[in-house]
Amino acid sequence: MSEDNDEMVVTPWEVRGKVDYDRLVEQFGTQLITPQLRERLTRAAGGSHFLLERELFFSHRGLDWVLDMYDRGVKFTLYTGRGPSGEVHLGHLVPWLFTKWLQDSFDTRLYFQITNDEKFWFEQGLSFEKVQQLADENILDIIAIGFDPEKTFILRDVEHIDLMYEIAVQVAKRVTFSTARAVFGFDNSMNIGGIFYPSIQAVPAFLHSWLTGERTPCLIPCAIDQDPHWRVTRDVAEKIGYYKPATVLSKFVPGLLEGGKMSSSDPMSGVYTTDTPALIRKKIMAAFTGGRTTVKEQREMGGVPEVCSVFSFFKFIFMPNDRELAELERKCRGGELLCGECKQMLAPRVVEFMEHHREAREEARERVHEFSASRLREEIRR
Amino acid sequence: MSEDNDEMVVTPWEVRGKVDYDRLVEQFGTQLITPQLRERLTRAAGGSHFLLERELFFSHRGLDWVLDMYDRGVKFTLYTGRGPSGEVHLGHLVPWLFTKWLQDSFDTRLYFQITNDEKFWFEQGLSFEKVQQLADENILDIIAIGFDPEKTFILRDVEHIDLMYEIAVQVAKRVTFSTARAVFGFDNSMNIGGIFYPSIQAVPAFLHSWLTGERTPCLIPCAIDQDPHWRVTRDVAEKIGYYKPATVLSKFVPGLLEGGKMSSSDPMSGVYTTDTPALIRKKIMAAFTGGRTTVKEQREMGGVPEVCSVFSFFKFIFMPNDRELAELERKCRGGELLCGECKQMLAPRVVEFMEHHREAREEARERVHEFSASRLREEIRR
Repeated sequence: MSEDNDEMVVTPWEVRGKVDYDRLVEQFGTQLITPQLRERLTRAAGGSHFLLERELFFSHRGLDWVLDMYDRGVKFTLYTGRGPSGEVHLGHLVPWLFTKWLQDSFDTRLYFQITNDEKFWFEQGLSFEKVQQLADENILDIIAIGFDPEKTFILRDVEHIDLMYEIAVQVAKRVTFSTARAVFGFDNSMNIGGIFYPSIQAVPAFLHSWLTGERTPCLIPCAIDQDPHWRVTRDVAEKIGYYKPATVLSKFVPGLLEGGKMSSSDPMSGVYTTDTPALIRKKIMAAFTGGRTTVKEQREMGGVPEVCSVFSFFKFIFMPNDRELAELERKCRGGELLCGECKQMLAPRVVEFMEHHREAREEARERVHEFSASRLREEIRR
Repeated sequence: MSEDNDEMVVTPWEVRGKVDYDRLVEQFGTQLITPQLRERLTRAAGGSHFLLERELFFSHRGLDWVLDMYDRGVKFTLYTGRGPSGEVHLGHLVPWLFTKWLQDSFDTRLYFQITNDEKFWFEQGLSFEKVQQLADENILDIIAIGFDPEKTFILRDVEHIDLMYEIAVQVAKRVTFSTARAVFGFDNSMNIGGIFYPSIQAVPAFLHSWLTGERTPCLIPCAIDQDPHWRVTRDVAEKIGYYKPATVLSKFVPGLLEGGKMSSSDPMSGVYTTDTPALIRKKIMAAFTGGRTTVKEQREMGGVPEVCSVFSFFKFIFMPNDRELAELERKCRGGELLCGECKQMLAPRVVEFMEHHREAREEARERVHEFSASRLREEIRR
């Protein structure tokens, strides 16, 4: 095939080619987070977050409006989600850590959707049993992040459809096949579950309002590939009596291989929460860096952190301290620090992080019910 | 518009033009009920039913197979439904009376679906609140038929989606937009709820098997316009581990106006369960008959019962006795009985039937819970 591999394709179900975020923002029609808006969010949150400062979260829809409402005393709820089509890797954990920061800072509810219907509909080879098993496992990773059990509700689409269907029915009536096709690129071979699915992903944005009978703003932290969903959800919202949900959108966490994000199609590109310490070390030692071909060159010319996956790992996960990161960058650019040394510094941090995560993950097995959206059944206003 | 009004259009959502049942059977690919099959069903049921003898129920898919299974000791369940888009008229009650006969004769469960999602998705002008109100009212008419509460489960799609969604998810994965478009005639302006809906209508055919974990045949008595749904449902059934549902299909009960069925678009065409006795009499006296233009002609040439709506009312509802009907027909054809007299004979029967129905309908208000599919939640195998 003579397919151009550099051609950028970003949909909720596929990310391919080199991602040009400026073009993506323009194509999707989202807003960039300006320094002013970043500062406003930081002030409202009572502190900064390095993922915001370092622009992993870089774009949004309606974040300014959510803060306007907040200033007027109207609180928001959070909503994010996970499609259980595989195991969880660091690239998934990063936006969840940011979501936890939002929950902690604003002391607010989080609706966490597990889209087990979606993954069954969209992944040809995946049995429903396998999706369920992955959902069980993925939920442990979510709980391990440390969300507040009192304020966190993990919604599994199939199991909690009774809490969701009435809203989905309302959304679905307002979205034609033409629209779905234009926004998501569906063709005639798409199954009718997949075509319906955007109505389900819209639901948690309105769930709190539906449950309480009070219109409540909703903020969705997630990766930018999900934006087409929010375009549809926002378009429908006011027609069915709810606020448009706002979003705060991240770039993809770069993977360990050249140029790409962490991808389940190449397990070496990401560090999974189930990887052994030995495998983690191996992946990091094999990672793509911004180093030169020889030590001599590197000493003379320095490394190139902006293309380096090891530097990205420090930047977006393992080195929240700005001074420490600046020092690392200086040493890299100056040729003082070689890639092997840098990897040796990173590996134990990743191993330690993952060991903590794994412990929390095992403890989570006993706590799944504490987070279940089943508790919401007692809250339905009617 | 120069539209040809005689052009036959029969879909689950529209019946237009003069219905040619032979052509419809050929077009849909269903089977005619042969005298042998009719006799077989009658024998298995332990008695005949006039709607079968008089060929209102005239076509089927897999009815012979259901009887084969029955002969081998495998019982079936029944499934039928109602779309709550308006009030109930006699044309709706007739297939339900036949369904009751099947339930009584075979002592079997009946799953009765109320498609409140469907009607909201397919009827532009109908609010969800109105659909719910109609569902409440229609359910009273269903209960008034006298189904066995122990064995009858009224499923409201939105309220009982927790019992249905997992099966719908399985069905939906196996139906592409191409198929749905070809079978149902959907175009790109159809909303994504309507496109998904066939997965929901498939569910009750498999529900008993899902609940009990035992593959169970299902027989669906309904009007032939629903056949496209069963085509899809049967096509998917074995792929997801269930038996293909069988159907026994009726013609439409003719309306009181010339040539058509009872249609909500013309209230004079049908007798509604909420009509007053005075209105019922008025509708019957205004009904289209097979009479001649003058009394003299009628005395000489006789009436034409095969085109007469009054005769249809006797044939399909108000004169189950074959000898009585034969006598009526003889007198009509012989010019002995004039249309006015015939109507005078019909009117009190309809009024009386409806008064009984209305009483049963009022009593039903207290008994809705006895029929609710909510009871099924205790039965889920898992």
